[in-house]
Amino acid sequence: MKRFALLAGCLLLAVAQACIAQALASWNDGPAKEAIVRFVTAVTTEDATTFVAAENRIAVFDNDGTLWPEQPLYFQFVFAVDRIKTMAPQHPEWKDREPFKSILAGDAKAALAGGESAVAELVAATHAGVTTDEFETQVTDWLATARHPRFDRPYSDLAYQPMLELLRYLRDSGFKTYIVSGGGIDFMRPWTQRVYGIPPDQVVGSQGKLRFEMHDGTPVLVKLPQIELVDDGPGKPVGMQKHIGRRPLAAFGNSDGDLQMLEWTMAGPGPRFALIVHHTDAEREWAYDRKSPVGRLDRALDEARAKGWTIVDMKRDWKKVFAFQ
Amino acid sequence: MKRFALLAGCLLLAVAQACIAQALASWNDGPAKEAIVRFVTAVTTEDATTFVAAENRIAVFDNDGTLWPEQPLYFQFVFAVDRIKTMAPQHPEWKDREPFKSILAGDAKAALAGGESAVAELVAATHAGVTTDEFETQVTDWLATARHPRFDRPYSDLAYQPMLELLRYLRDSGFKTYIVSGGGIDFMRPWTQRVYGIPPDQVVGSQGKLRFEMHDGTPVLVKLPQIELVDDGPGKPVGMQKHIGRRPLAAFGNSDGDLQMLEWTMAGPGPRFALIVHHTDAEREWAYDRKSPVGRLDRALDEARAKGWTIVDMKRDWKKVFAFQ
Repeated sequence: MKRFALLAGCLLLAVAQACIAQALASWNDGPAKEAIVRFVTAVTTEDATTFVAAENRIAVFDNDGTLWPEQPLYFQFVFAVDRIKTMAPQHPEWKDREPFKSILAGDAKAALAGGESAVAELVAATHAGVTTDEFETQVTDWLATARHPRFDRPYSDLAYQPMLELLRYLRDSGFKTYIVSGGGIDFMRPWTQRVYGIPPDQVVGSQGKLRFEMHDGTPVLVKLPQIELVDDGPGKPVGMQKHIGRRPLAAFGNSDGDLQMLEWTMAGPGPRFALIVHHTDAEREWAYDRKSPVGRLDRALDEARAKGWTIVDMKRDWKKVFAFQ
Repeated sequence: MKRFALLAGCLLLAVAQACIAQALASWNDGPAKEAIVRFVTAVTTEDATTFVAAENRIAVFDNDGTLWPEQPLYFQFVFAVDRIKTMAPQHPEWKDREPFKSILAGDAKAALAGGESAVAELVAATHAGVTTDEFETQVTDWLATARHPRFDRPYSDLAYQPMLELLRYLRDSGFKTYIVSGGGIDFMRPWTQRVYGIPPDQVVGSQGKLRFEMHDGTPVLVKLPQIELVDDGPGKPVGMQKHIGRRPLAAFGNSDGDLQMLEWTMAGPGPRFALIVHHTDAEREWAYDRKSPVGRLDRALDEARAKGWTIVDMKRDWKKVFAFQ
């Protein structure tokens, strides 16, 4: 009987290993994949001291640079630029006014030279003054037509294949998966279910104020230009607390903007998991870290190394980056 | 074969009816129960034109007066009063300062005579200046010891039994159930899973600002006295959009503070459901509506009647109000 149990156990283990290999098919064997599987096994093995009830299995993912690229520019910024161009005929005054003038001249760098107030002007012009329903339509329409300049594909084709597998593997292991991004919540929600399998209510992001109004007897929500939450850096634990109300068990990021999210996650009791995607693959994607103006990874890389967090070396750890490669 | 199918269908129908009767055991037969079952059947019957995919079955519930009582005072206000009493030895200055002076003298009415600024002072003293973890402990400890003055039971024993059955019936029918309350989100989250089966991330409520801080190398979130969202009246659709990001299919409330939540829900396309709990049972609970300072139901009652929304007559429709009755 004992021998049979042992045999059955081995068979089960072999099946489980085969299942994991299948689930994480785009991951090369190595320390990153091993660490992921070890953590998931620890919290899902029922008689282990490390077991965590399914209702507490919360995993949070940054979006830009963690689930899809952020180069050469944040995709949401490209959306805003395209909106400015679309709206320009109704705004002749933009031809002589920054940051719109530079945007229309195709010089994003000059447009952003105005710093925070320039960004605030762009956000107000492109992300406010419309109802939430209208904005959702704008995002959906843009995503259906815009194409990434390097890969000449819709932006939503650029979700990282290994991360899609990881999301599914975690969900199949009883985790509830969330996005916690510095990007705009209303920009992400229209497509996260389709692309990542993450429903709108599991998306946390930067948020502007909303106002309830009646338009001809129909209730609408109007997006206002005032920012309520910048869900980046120390804003990420704040956003998580507001939306999720529980400390995550596992957090996945790629830049210094994710540092406090990772720290907050790791500060809880019991088994925890923190992972950083390090962009090391200029050939298939991009290679950047400490000096990049977009997605800078400096302090968080030091802390990850000091604390033994898992670091994904994109070039070494991922068999493929995108599904189409 | 056809006769067999018919027989099987009838049997299935009979079983389904028996299951519903069982699921809503504390509901008397009548128009309210009928309307609930008709709506749920419509959106869950796969070949019906009214079918709604499970991922879009969102149901939102007000808390005070809809899922548990709000008399003689909002329970959260009682919590704040008890906190003031507990903290008073550390605040000798409160003896001579309103609204604390009146609270400590047991005169809640006089304390609230100071209006909004008095409430803001109470919130700042009892709901801010602590970390989210500390506040959670305070709420949990209070709920474990405080007893309702009329029923002499823990407040969490006072969840309405028919509403608990309704929550479960909806979840068993594929709905995701949310709380959307004017009460404080951090006050509700510690116990909604245990009492209602609703996890913390499906609780929407009034919210104060939070700040991320490092205390001796440990990250904490500090509750600040500034209010960020009053999740009541027109604030409810705003809160729902922020947290849920999708329009609910069904909404359940009991007062004018729920009107915009019900309007927003009913303004979507396809089958929709709006229900108001009318407190008509002074014997088993309370009877109040248009003139009540707590949970006033006036405009929303008129609109419910005009638009044919479902109105629960607590006395007539509920076999029992509380599990212990």
